[in-house]
Amino acid sequence: MSESGVRWVEVDEHVGLVTDILTGLGAPEEAARWQAQVLLEGDLRGHPSHGLRRIEVLAGRIRRGLAVPDAKPRLEWRTPAALAVDGQRGLGPPTAARAVDALLERLVDTGVAVAAIRDTNHLGMLAPYVERLAADGVVGLATTTSEALVHPWGGIPAMVGTNPLAVAVPSEEEPVVLDMATGEVSMGKVLDHEARGEPLPQGSVVDARGVPTSDPAEAVKGAISPFGGAKGYALAVTLEVLVASLTGTALGRDVRGTLDATDHCNKGDVLLAIDPAAFGQDDRGPLQRFVEELRSCPVAPGHERVTVPGDRARERRRACLGQGAVPIAEVTWERAVAWATEVGASPGVPRGEEP
Amino acid sequence: MSESGVRWVEVDEHVGLVTDILTGLGAPEEAARWQAQVLLEGDLRGHPSHGLRRIEVLAGRIRRGLAVPDAKPRLEWRTPAALAVDGQRGLGPPTAARAVDALLERLVDTGVAVAAIRDTNHLGMLAPYVERLAADGVVGLATTTSEALVHPWGGIPAMVGTNPLAVAVPSEEEPVVLDMATGEVSMGKVLDHEARGEPLPQGSVVDARGVPTSDPAEAVKGAISPFGGAKGYALAVTLEVLVASLTGTALGRDVRGTLDATDHCNKGDVLLAIDPAAFGQDDRGPLQRFVEELRSCPVAPGHERVTVPGDRARERRRACLGQGAVPIAEVTWERAVAWATEVGASPGVPRGEEP
Repeated sequence: MSESGVRWVEVDEHVGLVTDILTGLGAPEEAARWQAQVLLEGDLRGHPSHGLRRIEVLAGRIRRGLAVPDAKPRLEWRTPAALAVDGQRGLGPPTAARAVDALLERLVDTGVAVAAIRDTNHLGMLAPYVERLAADGVVGLATTTSEALVHPWGGIPAMVGTNPLAVAVPSEEEPVVLDMATGEVSMGKVLDHEARGEPLPQGSVVDARGVPTSDPAEAVKGAISPFGGAKGYALAVTLEVLVASLTGTALGRDVRGTLDATDHCNKGDVLLAIDPAAFGQDDRGPLQRFVEELRSCPVAPGHERVTVPGDRARERRRACLGQGAVPIAEVTWERAVAWATEVGASPGVPRGEEP
Repeated sequence: MSESGVRWVEVDEHVGLVTDILTGLGAPEEAARWQAQVLLEGDLRGHPSHGLRRIEVLAGRIRRGLAVPDAKPRLEWRTPAALAVDGQRGLGPPTAARAVDALLERLVDTGVAVAAIRDTNHLGMLAPYVERLAADGVVGLATTTSEALVHPWGGIPAMVGTNPLAVAVPSEEEPVVLDMATGEVSMGKVLDHEARGEPLPQGSVVDARGVPTSDPAEAVKGAISPFGGAKGYALAVTLEVLVASLTGTALGRDVRGTLDATDHCNKGDVLLAIDPAAFGQDDRGPLQRFVEELRSCPVAPGHERVTVPGDRARERRRACLGQGAVPIAEVTWERAVAWATEVGASPGVPRGEEP
């Protein structure tokens, strides 16, 4: 249960620590729990860059007034299907969760609805939001802008966000869940590899002159490459302008506030919900058979198996939940505990459902 | 103006020939012109696989009753924002054009609307539909399923469509226009390279054992690789299940009817329209500045310039329109003329706006 520099933390302890830090900083219990659950999901799914590691920047943002833990987001239905959300600088997860609830309620009438969210903090992993829609039988799509870390195809400097796209489509059993960034690697991975002196896959990053490299130290001075070359770049730019055009938020190098504790968070988020039943479609049998056929497809040399989007994250998540614990870098844990101590919470004490 | 095996065809002549063939086969003038314009767009943008080359299969489909040129699509608003379209086996372009019109009309009230289209023939390039939405200041998204030509990531046989995604986002000047298939190459390109005995880029196709190859003859027995590896595969599958779940159409290897003249066309199409004004957003200045900044970005070694999605297709299109002609493979032209002769039209005679 242990690796060098990694500690297995009980799930309740993880959630409890984040909740304590945030309530200690003035967050209402419910908002703190939403944020804690989303950070837990990052760690459960093997994306520590979206896990507990984020609490330090988030706590720093709250301290500086850049994130307002007890903010009350303003939700305005400007048309029957268009929801404009002003997060009032609040925490991302409770803001987005309220938008998801509003979309689900509205779908009963409209079948289709979109939320354009601005002025909220980092949402964390997007999969949980679209999974929540899919759990209600609804197709969910989420995308967001982020700091410019990716170079344009053929260009040198980082000018485009790692703009993730998440889509969940309900099936008979587990939904199909896409959740991917449009960069070839994450900046978290670049920094991890730099710390360990380990090379990155060739083609995933460029140096400051725009030349592909595998040296993470050069990549830090350069940029992340878009996944899939010209097509991936085109998708990343398209998501960037789509989000900005619906939310009126920043673009390119002007985007700030999800990785730093110094700037207003001016990225945007878009959530889209479509109910297949609104189109008269409710038979999920063919979709279920298709994904099963994919999973049992003959495997190519050099590969182990064929999966469907969402499979790997779900397996990793279940494995952790099965043992009730999640792997956290020691340094991440120590910093979180230090924050808990600083805000006067009792660090590391497991909490039940009720405080 | 000429290359070996290629003829420059006047734009009016191209449109006239297709219109003649289709009206000769029973299509109303307006439907025939929609179809002709969409095939022209394929050739103008440098995608002959979506150009005049398609007329042969389409004419064959009409002859066999698989495409009904005078079909009247049924459009049903099942909720204020959900439009179900039954194409009644009609031509794809006039069906989709009617759906776009209906979406635009509805957006005035709802700001967001989705059309789920089934039982129509191949739509052709998707960019023209989303560009039409963008011309009205609206964000457009289009996606469609297609025959299984792409192998799953880690799998051997072709089981996923080349499922294209098109998105247009209005700017102050030209919109940003994504229009890409999720396969690394098109089957048209594979067949072209096979005919010319020219290798394909390594990584773009696999042979019948699932091993990457550059030999197009091996690829024909194998499959096309998804663009961008595991992420591109995940996107392709997600689009496939998204379209099928909203339209109730076929999945994977069951998809037929866009490349053959033997089977009912059972793919689906989804169009999504979102009006930024519905969210109170109408300032396109920042978006315009962002795309200009991308275009003037410092260029990486080995590249010529940085473009924005839509730039290259637009340039190619304008260059052709500037000289009023489009390059067509001789064999494609001859086959189209043969069809015109067979259906009793006068092949190759330029036509004005009115017949």
